[in-house]
Order: sequence, then structure tokens, then C-alpha cells
Amino acid sequence: MATNNRQILLVETPKGKLSPEHFKMQEAPLPVANDGELLLRVKIISLDAANRAWMQGATYREAVGAGTVMAGGAVAEVVESKAPGFAPGDLVFADTGWQAYVALPARKCIKVPKVEPLTHLISVYGVAGLTAYFGLLHVGQPKAGETVVVSAAAGSVGSIVGQIAKIKGCRVVGIAGGKDKCDWLVRHLGFDAAVDYKAGPVYKALKEAAPDGIDVYFDNVGGDIFEACLPLMRQNGRIACCGAISAYDGAPPTAGPRGVPGLIVVKRLTVKGFIVTDFYPERDKAIADLSAWVAAGKLKVEEDVLDGLENTPKALIGLLAGENRGKRMVRVS
Amino acid sequence: MATNNRQILLVETPKGKLSPEHFKMQEAPLPVANDGELLLRVKIISLDAANRAWMQGATYREAVGAGTVMAGGAVAEVVESKAPGFAPGDLVFADTGWQAYVALPARKCIKVPKVEPLTHLISVYGVAGLTAYFGLLHVGQPKAGETVVVSAAAGSVGSIVGQIAKIKGCRVVGIAGGKDKCDWLVRHLGFDAAVDYKAGPVYKALKEAAPDGIDVYFDNVGGDIFEACLPLMRQNGRIACCGAISAYDGAPPTAGPRGVPGLIVVKRLTVKGFIVTDFYPERDKAIADLSAWVAAGKLKVEEDVLDGLENTPKALIGLLAGENRGKRMVRVS
Repeated sequence: MATNNRQILLVETPKGKLSPEHFKMQEAPLPVANDGELLLRVKIISLDAANRAWMQGATYREAVGAGTVMAGGAVAEVVESKAPGFAPGDLVFADTGWQAYVALPARKCIKVPKVEPLTHLISVYGVAGLTAYFGLLHVGQPKAGETVVVSAAAGSVGSIVGQIAKIKGCRVVGIAGGKDKCDWLVRHLGFDAAVDYKAGPVYKALKEAAPDGIDVYFDNVGGDIFEACLPLMRQNGRIACCGAISAYDGAPPTAGPRGVPGLIVVKRLTVKGFIVTDFYPERDKAIADLSAWVAAGKLKVEEDVLDGLENTPKALIGLLAGENRGKRMVRVS
Repeated sequence: MATNNRQILLVETPKGKLSPEHFKMQEAPLPVANDGELLLRVKIISLDAANRAWMQGATYREAVGAGTVMAGGAVAEVVESKAPGFAPGDLVFADTGWQAYVALPARKCIKVPKVEPLTHLISVYGVAGLTAYFGLLHVGQPKAGETVVVSAAAGSVGSIVGQIAKIKGCRVVGIAGGKDKCDWLVRHLGFDAAVDYKAGPVYKALKEAAPDGIDVYFDNVGGDIFEACLPLMRQNGRIACCGAISAYDGAPPTAGPRGVPGLIVVKRLTVKGFIVTDFYPERDKAIADLSAWVAAGKLKVEEDVLDGLENTPKALIGLLAGENRGKRMVRVS
């Protein structure tokens, strides 16, 4: 075991685009577990677009302030337990922050099973997989034969959303940036069509790719792409609002999508935001379904793993620029 | 019975604000009922903000084209029946258009009971009352003790929404234009508070009037007021999207409300559009509840009745400018 901790601080609240200067690595003493706490060694940190939103203010969690360790979820191993029900060697998922070690109250740690490979705990059985599962099935409620559109389709959540929609018998259209990603969605993941938002107006391409209209739009990005989907929604369509990546990194948008609320009325749409943790009581059923699909070869797990705690800022900056395919994470130990 | 019909035509599709020049009164031969049809004498025409939206293009109904009789719902009396189940003297609700007589297929006419006063068929037991009932209770789903905010609160729908919310034990805040309307909402209709959108920034006044935040926002207007409500919504709040009056009369808005979809995500909001006719299978239960509340003196029916078919254009133009309190209608015969 190391004698020192290593931590990555957010040194200032970014005003515009996130860059490496917003972070600093520091050494610190190893934390100590008090009664009711666990000392954890961080194994794999999850990178999520929402990390960026946390820096700007309170969301569904408190803001990450300047001068503090950057927050982030991770799989970690229990090194020392001062809480009942946990023993050294156990694996947990927790908001450890971007650091090598942390002491946390046991009630903030969720015990997770040891699976092979361990990275699946961050991707398909982690926040990404559960967000895709609950957001699509519980919020979007697609029926066989319906058309499902997902944005950021090559990302961690989108790539799983599209595949689950295919498993449920839907026509699936992904929106992603660049021809390579779009080809990969169709050829490798089995999407019915893909729209490259960098290649031209999304509305026109989407109308061709979804000629009968959109029953369920799984929105990861907000902004112009949300606006392009709105007029194509079918009557009684559902929009599952998962995030608004387009608004995270830079100045806040000066306007929302045109057609709100007018098109919501005339098309009788349901637009519903959700946070994956709200569905955690139904987590076991979700993981059972996801595991079965993975085992049957129906759900391909796409991971993008970087090595070394020091690469975490770079990993997040790249994620916000859309450079990853599938779930991005950093292996720390 | 008259020997001629009188009709009001929409002479051109308005590009901006609606004005009297967009309409023309003409005489025409009395229509003739064919097999399966009813000849109707129009009694009372309902004026609705949505009438304006119909002129711009297809909504949940086809557009009203230039050179045709202006569309609109009305209570009418059967003069001659060539369809089973209807007899002279029966009352129906139908889209008669703005005219004194019309022949319509019986399947497009809904028989309504004879109530006193007849105007209640257009207000509390008509589209306005049913829209308020279904939109608030089925879409908004308020619970006792929650805060309900309604815009266009002094209008036909809003004045009923607020009163039903009070009946259900909610704290009710109305948004309306002008001190007189606001005083009337609180003193006459029993709202807990009212915000005058003409008196200053809505967000600030609304925050004072709804200090615990908003659980249900019943939106009749869209635009800036929608935007002002969004940051005040409580977690798991519901927005019932009933209409977007602010966008009907004039050029289409160039942008939507800020905070869409970002605030929908972090607050886990449900934003749901609806059209009252979708709920018509449950109409009898709604009318029974509304009648009981009226009879018990819990629900005050506010009506604003003009006389004479020739005044219908003026009545709609004034409605869009917000000059009415309660349900506006025109008595034709």
C-alpha cells in the first residue's frame, strides 16, 4: 500500500471550455477510516458528461467547488473496514472523487459483485448501463415496431440505449458526430440508420432516416438536436431527457429549443427528465436483464479505458469533445 | 326561420397580429341537410385562443384556409334531422364555424343536455371546463398541500383550473395581466396569490408568491412565463402544457424557453402536452364532478358573453389581447 494519497483538484470553476489548467495533481497524506467508514483504494473512475455540469453549480448534487478534489464515481476496493457488512477485498461503487484513496461512510458505498472484466461494473452494469436501461424502458416506454432516436449514440449511454431498443423490436436511429462513428453504429452495433450531425442539417437527415416520425427520442444533448427532433415527433411521442451535453461545456445557452411548448401541446408529447438513482430500487432486475443480454451476445459492451489517475482530466476533456466510443473510464490501480 | 345564412369568412391568413380586416361577413343560401346530416341553428359560439393557432397551419386539426368560413365550436339547435337519434329541438356541440346555420354529418355532433343557463355548456361544461378538469387532474396530478401555478389565470380555463386546485386542497397562484384581474383572482375566486405579469419580472414575483416552489404549473401561454416558472419547479414537478397563447398571435417565436431540457433533467420534471378531446371517454365523470362543485357553490362560473355573429372577430381579437375575464362567447340566436 502507498504511503501517500494522490488527488486531482479542481483549481477554479471553468467559465467556458474545460481545459487541463483547471486541474492540479497533489500529494496528500493517506486518509484514515473512522467508525462507520471504509478506507477505499480506487480501482476505476467513471468519466461522465455530467461531471462537467457539477462544476457550474448545484444540480441533483451539490456543486464541486474550486480548490476541492474533483468528484466522480468509481469502483473501489475496501482496504480497511470500520463498518459492519464490509470486509477488506470487497468491491464497492461510490463517489470517491478523483484520487487514489478515500475514506467514506459505509452508507455512501454500494457493494458490487466481482465480475470479469471489472470494467463492466462501470460500463454496462454501472451508471451508463442503468441510465440507458431505465431511461429507455421506464421513461421512453418504447413498443415493438416504434421508432427510437438516440443522440450521442456512440457514447456510453447512447450505444446501450440503441441496442436495448433493437432487442425490444424497435427501428433505431442514432445521431453521432462523424462518418466513422455513424458507420460503426450501423455495422457494429446493428442500428437501422445513423445521422452524422457534423455532415449537415440534422432535421433533414433525420426525416429521411425516420420517415414515419419518432415515437421515442432519448435525449443526451439538448440544444439544436433536441430542436431538430421536436417537429418529427409522432403524436403521443415520448422524450426521455437524460442530459444536455451541448450546454455543459461553455457559456450557458441563451435560448431553448423552438417549438417548446407549442409542439408539445399539438403532438401531446411527454417530455420527462430523470436521474438514474431514482430507479435504484429496481436495480437488481435491470442488472439481471443486462447480464442476460450480454451473455446471449445481444448487447455489445463498448469500453474506452485509459490508464493512470493523472490522465483523468484529459479523459474528461476528450469525452466532452466527443472523442470516445462507448464508456470512457480511467484505471487507477 | 331565416331565408338566408350569414357567415364570417377568414379572407387571408394573418401574417402578424390578427385584425378585423382578416374577416368578412357574407350572406349565403341556407344550407340543406342530406342523408345522415343535421341542419343546425347556431346558438352560442365559443371563442378560444386556439382559434388563432388554427389559422397558421395544421395543429391537432387541419388549418383554416383563407376564403373559408372561420372554424369554431358552438352549441347549436337541431332544426331538421336526417339522421337517427336526433330530433328538431335537440341541442348539440359541434364545430359549426362562425355562421348562423350549418348542415353537418350527425357523427360530428355531440348531443348535450339542456341546462340553465345555456352558456354553461360553453363555459364550465364545455371545452374550457373540461380542459381545466382533465389538464389539472389527469395531467398535472396535484396533491393536497402542493403549490399549483396557472397562467392566463383570469381566462376561461385558468379561472377554473385555480378553483379546482383549491377544491383539491392546493396552494394556488395565478398569473394574469393587470392589477384588476389579479385582485379579482384573489378576492373573488379565492386564489392564494396572484402575479401581475405586466407589473414587473415574473420570476421574482412568482418566487415570493410560491416560496416553496411549484409542484404543478398549468401552462396556457408558453414563452417568457414558461421560462420564468421552470427554475422554480420543485423536484418531480409536473407541467401541463395546454396552449401557447404567447406564440399564437404574431410571428412565431425565434427561440424556446431557456432551461429546456437542462432543468427538466436536474429537477426530474414531467412536461406533458394534452388535447382535451383525448379525454372525452371520461367526460361524464368530469361533468358530474363539475356540476356538483357548481351546485355546492365551490366553483364560480365566469362568463363573458357578447351578442351578435358580427361581433365574433372582435371577440377573438380582444381575447388574444387578454381583455376577457372567464369564458368568452358570442350569442348568435
